[in-house]
Amino acid sequence: MNSKTHQQVALISDALERADEETAISHLEGLSPAEIASLLESLPHSLRPALWPRVPSAEKGEVLLELHGDLRRALIELTDEDELVASLSAMQMDELADLDEDLPIPIINAMVQAMDTQRRQRYEAVRDYPDDSAGGLMDVDFAAVRADVTLKAVLRFMRRIRRHDDQLPEHFDSLMVVDRTNRYIGVLPLGDLISLNLEATVADVMVTGVPGITPLTPAREVARLFEDQDLLSAPVVDEQGQLLGRITVDDVIDVLRDEAEQEILSRVGLEQHEDMFAPVVRSSVRRAVWLGINLLTAFAAAWVIGLFEASIEKVVALAVLMPVVASMGGVAGSQTLTLVTRGMALEQVGRGNVLRLLWHELGIGLLNGLFWAVVVAAVAVFWFGDLLLGIIFGVSLIIGILTGALAGTVIPLTLKRMGVDPALAGGVVLTTATDAIGFFAFLGLATLLLL
Amino acid sequence: MNSKTHQQVALISDALERADEETAISHLEGLSPAEIASLLESLPHSLRPALWPRVPSAEKGEVLLELHGDLRRALIELTDEDELVASLSAMQMDELADLDEDLPIPIINAMVQAMDTQRRQRYEAVRDYPDDSAGGLMDVDFAAVRADVTLKAVLRFMRRIRRHDDQLPEHFDSLMVVDRTNRYIGVLPLGDLISLNLEATVADVMVTGVPGITPLTPAREVARLFEDQDLLSAPVVDEQGQLLGRITVDDVIDVLRDEAEQEILSRVGLEQHEDMFAPVVRSSVRRAVWLGINLLTAFAAAWVIGLFEASIEKVVALAVLMPVVASMGGVAGSQTLTLVTRGMALEQVGRGNVLRLLWHELGIGLLNGLFWAVVVAAVAVFWFGDLLLGIIFGVSLIIGILTGALAGTVIPLTLKRMGVDPALAGGVVLTTATDAIGFFAFLGLATLLLL
Repeated sequence: MNSKTHQQVALISDALERADEETAISHLEGLSPAEIASLLESLPHSLRPALWPRVPSAEKGEVLLELHGDLRRALIELTDEDELVASLSAMQMDELADLDEDLPIPIINAMVQAMDTQRRQRYEAVRDYPDDSAGGLMDVDFAAVRADVTLKAVLRFMRRIRRHDDQLPEHFDSLMVVDRTNRYIGVLPLGDLISLNLEATVADVMVTGVPGITPLTPAREVARLFEDQDLLSAPVVDEQGQLLGRITVDDVIDVLRDEAEQEILSRVGLEQHEDMFAPVVRSSVRRAVWLGINLLTAFAAAWVIGLFEASIEKVVALAVLMPVVASMGGVAGSQTLTLVTRGMALEQVGRGNVLRLLWHELGIGLLNGLFWAVVVAAVAVFWFGDLLLGIIFGVSLIIGILTGALAGTVIPLTLKRMGVDPALAGGVVLTTATDAIGFFAFLGLATLLLL
Repeated sequence: MNSKTHQQVALISDALERADEETAISHLEGLSPAEIASLLESLPHSLRPALWPRVPSAEKGEVLLELHGDLRRALIELTDEDELVASLSAMQMDELADLDEDLPIPIINAMVQAMDTQRRQRYEAVRDYPDDSAGGLMDVDFAAVRADVTLKAVLRFMRRIRRHDDQLPEHFDSLMVVDRTNRYIGVLPLGDLISLNLEATVADVMVTGVPGITPLTPAREVARLFEDQDLLSAPVVDEQGQLLGRITVDDVIDVLRDEAEQEILSRVGLEQHEDMFAPVVRSSVRRAVWLGINLLTAFAAAWVIGLFEASIEKVVALAVLMPVVASMGGVAGSQTLTLVTRGMALEQVGRGNVLRLLWHELGIGLLNGLFWAVVVAAVAVFWFGDLLLGIIFGVSLIIGILTGALAGTVIPLTLKRMGVDPALAGGVVLTTATDAIGFFAFLGLATLLLL
């Protein structure tokens, strides 16, 4: 999405409000499906139905693929059935399989009817796998060649099939090489095909380093593999090594984008494909859950404070300073938590080094605790003229920050072992711990030493 | 990085501690440079120097490319100069240009000396552009063909150059097409080259839709373009349209990965390539800055509370409940902030729809505020048996949540206009606002109505 969009959103929404469809359409021209999708997401709820019919039928399928959740379903409902089927039947199998969770059964049936036998088999092959698995990502319209033929024969073969069907496989950088039983044995990069000796056989020149991916491999592992091995495409093979399909780097880019988006949104309890302009009530209900969870945390902290009402009544300064201890523990903890969660996602944190990591984080916490303890103690003494209060304030700050370091390391690892996504729940659990212990340490010490 | 790494980190670090280098090396075998880099990052500081010499010289350059900051510089210092130069001179120009900020001048000179004239010119061409621009990403070792030749001639040409130099351009999916003055005019996909009529000219079959990217285009815009147009590679052209180089999708994947990592780490004040095992003191100093900034926020909130010491002294329940108001405002605000920041990054939020977005968020805030106000009021009445206190508590919760919605929308837009990255500073500014206003609303109302 490049910066022309700003103005386009403005122009198009004005045009739509004036019911000036010509103008609206004119601003759609030359946009890619992804750009149209982003544009629709940028439009307020009320204006989207007006724009959708103006999107060229041929592109509707691709645009829907770029959208998600409610918005996608809403637009599907707005689309004429035949138009939808026509637009979908032009799409790739793996794309279709991503969409169909949101397609009404009759549409799917009509679509499958319209397919020739080969396409139908391929479609069913892909549909059987979860969207976030290698099988769900794979493309089944690909070209494979035998290892025992010459490059010249491959070139002849390519020209022949091209004459019959004009469509090339998407992101066509290499040919898969199989043996006579369709077992995957290597890859023939097109660059080698066009530049090496025509009399050589595929077997002579093929690349054998690219591993076959099994269809149930999780999408994020596939992405990691593409990154680590710098691949443009990779074969998907079953347990017997039979070639099932081909994953291309564009699918991997989508996986990376989604992974990042989910990590960022789920930290604040938003869903992955949160719609900026979803109806207010629906958005409110979704967010209410997260607010409710955090309310429990807040009341837990309040309860801890409640234990020390008597002390606060005597020394009001405690009420003034206690949020500082809690928040500093939370901030230090969130730094550790983020670092550890990242490390776990990159598989860099495990049994091999977690203890070292914990000591490392505690060391950092101790140094920063000591440093800032002196600062805050000075502030407190200057503010309230009470040395002991300052010392108690400083000491509990150290405790708070160390709590943050400990919780920030232990919580994500524990959550993962429990099968909970640390990026989702980590922050809440951390705050609960750092708030409660922060308040308890400060108010507790004060009660012991000050009163 | 796949899950074998866990055990490898454990095995290798044990081996290194036992100074059993054979074992350590044996576990390195078959790892890609990216995997070795990730492994080094997973190892504690003390063990890295022991492993580095065991990394095959040929791969050291690629591994360094995957590393960043202190770790990269430290390992460069540990590498023998001739070995380093040899390993680097095998690398691509754009990769070299990414590395050289961390290379000592003598190494760079030695490297440039070792280059032939052509490579030297290309290297200097890339080095002049910032790393995070199209020019910094582009690869200059690419093949271009003229539009007026036949496909057959192109194939002959490819075979000829391949015979002289065995290296193919990386991620070789297409040929750039230029006119006789080297102006970029189109792209010839290898798939078409091998499957279309040999007598056709390049001009007949070339794809003209792929736009030329100017060298100073920011990397994140390049990434967006690759995503939106689903590209494997794209040409870089100067203002006159002269073909300068070629950007491939693997560079884009790195950009996306870095973008996501930075967004996540900078939210808690960590730097983009934070080293999990950097020396404790260095890590502490870096994080101290962030803790200091947040300490100011915390004291600002404490100051607000200080204004109402008298009220708290009379009604201690205020001290117990006030953190709830502040934290709920912060949570609601962080949801809005995250959503708006995302929208801005995807260019989906702009003058065209920001007002609508603000109303949308305020609407959500109002609904959730009303709902949770009733809940917390009930809790307060039940807890402290004071109806008026409950009402004040509920009303200020609504104010807190609305403040969050307002601040969460306005802050990122204001920061961006000021040229500050919202992902970096947004959270702190937000908390300052929600805490201060939350405490002020609750304690202020209580002082007016309760005392």
